[in-house]
Amino acid sequence: MSHNKIVFVTGNANKLKEVQLLLKGIKYELVNEPLDLDELQESKLESIAISKVKQATSQLGAGVPVFVEDTALCFNAMNGLPGAYIKWFVKEMGIDNIYKMLTGFEDKTAKAITTIAYSDAMGKIHVFQGITEGTIVEPQGPRTFGWDSLFKPNDGVGLTYAQMDKEEKNKISQRARAFFKLKEYLEQQ
Amino acid sequence: MSHNKIVFVTGNANKLKEVQLLLKGIKYELVNEPLDLDELQESKLESIAISKVKQATSQLGAGVPVFVEDTALCFNAMNGLPGAYIKWFVKEMGIDNIYKMLTGFEDKTAKAITTIAYSDAMGKIHVFQGITEGTIVEPQGPRTFGWDSLFKPNDGVGLTYAQMDKEEKNKISQRARAFFKLKEYLEQQ
Repeated sequence: MSHNKIVFVTGNANKLKEVQLLLKGIKYELVNEPLDLDELQESKLESIAISKVKQATSQLGAGVPVFVEDTALCFNAMNGLPGAYIKWFVKEMGIDNIYKMLTGFEDKTAKAITTIAYSDAMGKIHVFQGITEGTIVEPQGPRTFGWDSLFKPNDGVGLTYAQMDKEEKNKISQRARAFFKLKEYLEQQ
Repeated sequence: MSHNKIVFVTGNANKLKEVQLLLKGIKYELVNEPLDLDELQESKLESIAISKVKQATSQLGAGVPVFVEDTALCFNAMNGLPGAYIKWFVKEMGIDNIYKMLTGFEDKTAKAITTIAYSDAMGKIHVFQGITEGTIVEPQGPRTFGWDSLFKPNDGVGLTYAQMDKEEKNKISQRARAFFKLKEYLEQQ
């Protein structure tokens, strides 16, 4: 693999397309690899991402620039949980029940956090995080994409992610913020 | 290491002592190794334990009989969650807040599940599970041991694990049940 390629670990064509858009203008060609990586139980989001990118490097071989991303939804009343485990909660409980977990708590605020771990051609690992603060609300809008119908960002216009159009969401989302940092970094190299 | 030894992966002397008691009478000498094993994010408890015992085998070398154990607390209203993640919830949220997660749900029942994965001298993996059904209650009794003050087993005398004496608890606990199965298996070999 030549050095002007950079690998994004995903098997999801839509995710690849979205990330290509977020990283538009970088001097690398963005390609994807659908690697099967283990995810650790860890409350430190950086550690989960770093462990994943190390596995990716050992599968792809040294010298291949590669990154992984992971998004967590951290309820402040629950001291950051479900965090990285949110995908299991969505899968096992469904959106309505996740909202109900906060019934006993006054504080409904949350942080959405995307963590990117990038291993460069020298094998050095760089971590970039984007954070968007918001509130957990009763599901509003289409429920097609993960927990988007539950999360109303503070910087938005009073809508949940699920109710916002993609362009609006990309202005303030934790994911866009994390990829903006990665892009900035790559442009400086 | 001789073949009449069996390794329990733990760095906790009290746990070792308890398990030595639960396995009393087996023809193996029980020793411990404080290995540092990764735990996967997984909703299948068997998969987490199997992944751990495989790591243990690769660290100890083939031919060493070794087992790991992992205990999950599965809320029925949350379709089995927090499950294996319960230790992170205890650590990050504290006992009182865990109880509050169920405020919005009528169903307060739960299953406590201990999963043991045992890799024998041939490297074949055997899984044993013990399950105790119960109810999640407001914390009662000493809070010194994990979530014991939250869990009132159905087979008990109306007390939480934390309020029961060790002997009473060991008659009905998911942990004792899982180790009883392991012991039964080892005695047949």
